Amino acid sequence: MANSKVYFTPGPSELYPTVKHHLTTALDEKIGTISHRSKTFIDIFKSTTDHLRSLLQLPDDFQILYLSSATEIWERIIQNAVIEKSFHLVNGSFSKRFYEFSGELGKQAYKVEAGLGEGFYPANITVPSDAEIICLTHNETSTGVSMPEEDIHMFREKNKNALIYIDGVSSLPYPVLDYSKIDSLFFSVQKCFGLPAGLGVWIVNSKVIDRAEALLKKGISIGTYHTLPSLLSKAISHQTPETPNVLNIYLLGKVIEDMLHKGGASALRKETEAKAQMVYQYVERSSVFSNGVADARLRSQTTIVLNTTIAPGEVNNVLEPFNMAIGAGYGSKKESQIRIANFPAHSPEQMEALVKILETKLG
Amino acid sequence: MANSKVYFTPGPSELYPTVKHHLTTALDEKIGTISHRSKTFIDIFKSTTDHLRSLLQLPDDFQILYLSSATEIWERIIQNAVIEKSFHLVNGSFSKRFYEFSGELGKQAYKVEAGLGEGFYPANITVPSDAEIICLTHNETSTGVSMPEEDIHMFREKNKNALIYIDGVSSLPYPVLDYSKIDSLFFSVQKCFGLPAGLGVWIVNSKVIDRAEALLKKGISIGTYHTLPSLLSKAISHQTPETPNVLNIYLLGKVIEDMLHKGGASALRKETEAKAQMVYQYVERSSVFSNGVADARLRSQTTIVLNTTIAPGEVNNVLEPFNMAIGAGYGSKKESQIRIANFPAHSPEQMEALVKILETKLG
Repeated sequence: MANSKVYFTPGPSELYPTVKHHLTTALDEKIGTISHRSKTFIDIFKSTTDHLRSLLQLPDDFQILYLSSATEIWERIIQNAVIEKSFHLVNGSFSKRFYEFSGELGKQAYKVEAGLGEGFYPANITVPSDAEIICLTHNETSTGVSMPEEDIHMFREKNKNALIYIDGVSSLPYPVLDYSKIDSLFFSVQKCFGLPAGLGVWIVNSKVIDRAEALLKKGISIGTYHTLPSLLSKAISHQTPETPNVLNIYLLGKVIEDMLHKGGASALRKETEAKAQMVYQYVERSSVFSNGVADARLRSQTTIVLNTTIAPGEVNNVLEPFNMAIGAGYGSKKESQIRIANFPAHSPEQMEALVKILETKLG
Repeated sequence: MANSKVYFTPGPSELYPTVKHHLTTALDEKIGTISHRSKTFIDIFKSTTDHLRSLLQLPDDFQILYLSSATEIWERIIQNAVIEKSFHLVNGSFSKRFYEFSGELGKQAYKVEAGLGEGFYPANITVPSDAEIICLTHNETSTGVSMPEEDIHMFREKNKNALIYIDGVSSLPYPVLDYSKIDSLFFSVQKCFGLPAGLGVWIVNSKVIDRAEALLKKGISIGTYHTLPSLLSKAISHQTPETPNVLNIYLLGKVIEDMLHKGGASALRKETEAKAQMVYQYVERSSVFSNGVADARLRSQTTIVLNTTIAPGEVNNVLEPFNMAIGAGYGSKKESQIRIANFPAHSPEQMEALVKILETKLG
């Protein structure tokens, strides 16, 4: 039964409009059949990597690696960099899970925690000097709290020795990052890149690589096939250690190519902000919804979280005849908040229609 | 450019004939868009798991878990079961890599090694009594050497305390296993299940689960999101800890459903053996190819490896006008062997055509 609903759920979410076309082409070209050691795969790996480098305007010092999910990347970050201590800003379920991974891997994890819907003010934060890595979440998907880029950039100066990792899972390629102020970033493809889930992308600079090699030299186990040295030994010839999700690596390259043709990251940012504005302006007028994030400066542009006086299930009942769905709140906010994904796959026309229906039907 | 070539490469390989249809349906139903916490996903997880349980005739004591690749499963096996020592039979690149993972994770790995193209005779093998796990490869994809099921079953009696793991990556669902004689098995979907790569399936009994929990209780780190307790805590409600490759879990269920309609595993086995016979009988007559595996009893039914006097590239040049391709040998055998995948996706007609062309053109 064909499903024509438009999903504003925060991931998995709507597929980028060209995915269906590219998937059909992939089947015709038998991309799901070819060997991951073949020339065809090497060309796909290279093309996707080049397009992503271009979209994010990555410096040459950064390498792009393909893993299975952002969740896996949390684990690989700790394994490949931490001997004793990591530092995390925690303000929601996902940043909290990243923090917990460190302890589960036998490390000591420091955290500074903020309440749900709250963010951080870096001028007030002191990172312990023995923290080996600093883990920041650009966009906490569970609460809709973002960390402005200039706040992220403030950590470098006071913490010259720690490596800085940015979780950009539900916001990349939206943020404009100064690559001299961070060491690594990562995302998963089922959010802003509009792909089926099953691929995580990890971007690292040479300091992150050197760190993994230093741990290995000390005799510390940093994993097996997905250690940085293992990933890099294959990436250098445009391959992966294991048989990867070839189809998704292909689709990612094609979608980014389409994004580049539509004006690249700056055009995406402009459109994202215009769509977010539609929602945030409506919220000011709404009698049902209010901002889940009090500080306007910290409100996410890509995953908009709103307090609701009507249960999310009821909101979706109202949207049902119009073939639309929004996401419920996360965890303890499941019944009291809604989440609206504002990804590149959601067109301005769709967002406008959503806002209009919510306003007409709910006020 | 459409590609109509038939690939006899040993994985990724031909997609199962119904995959294209199921993928089209999946797109129409927006399976790539739905949340991995939704009722729709829960139904998919349950359906795929039920179909696989039925195909493999798994006892209730065994649980089915979804990870990203068989390579990942090698790592998770060691992490979730070994305090000090693992034991491995090594006779090719893949069984060797599994063995190496143990050392890379800081464990001590025992091995009994056989030459390339050679297998094992369990009556002659003594597993050290302090080995905590025994890792056997049913079908070594790099050399085409299989371990007959009755040989696998011999390990239990002499090794009552060690857990027994079967790598069935390139043979499942072909082997007929006695589940009272093994504790765990695993495969990846891009071999005999004819799917695009990006999903590994790990099957474990309660002893394997108990072992992981015992390690955790001792304070040993067994990983993070993909520890057995974490995987099981979600599997119990038909979910995964992370956002998984939803599309592939869906496709796996659909393909297995098709296999069940075609007579299930016993029909698959019969067809597989008939197709393998076509190749092995031709080899007896061939002046170009000879068996890569000397002992006929150990010759694989699913990945047929042959010595060749003509370079694999030349063999593929001969096959090119007929729109077919075989795999080259693996590693040091790259130029002196060919590998022919004999998976359920390869029809008897296709295998017959391949053999006929090889015989007519090369002798």
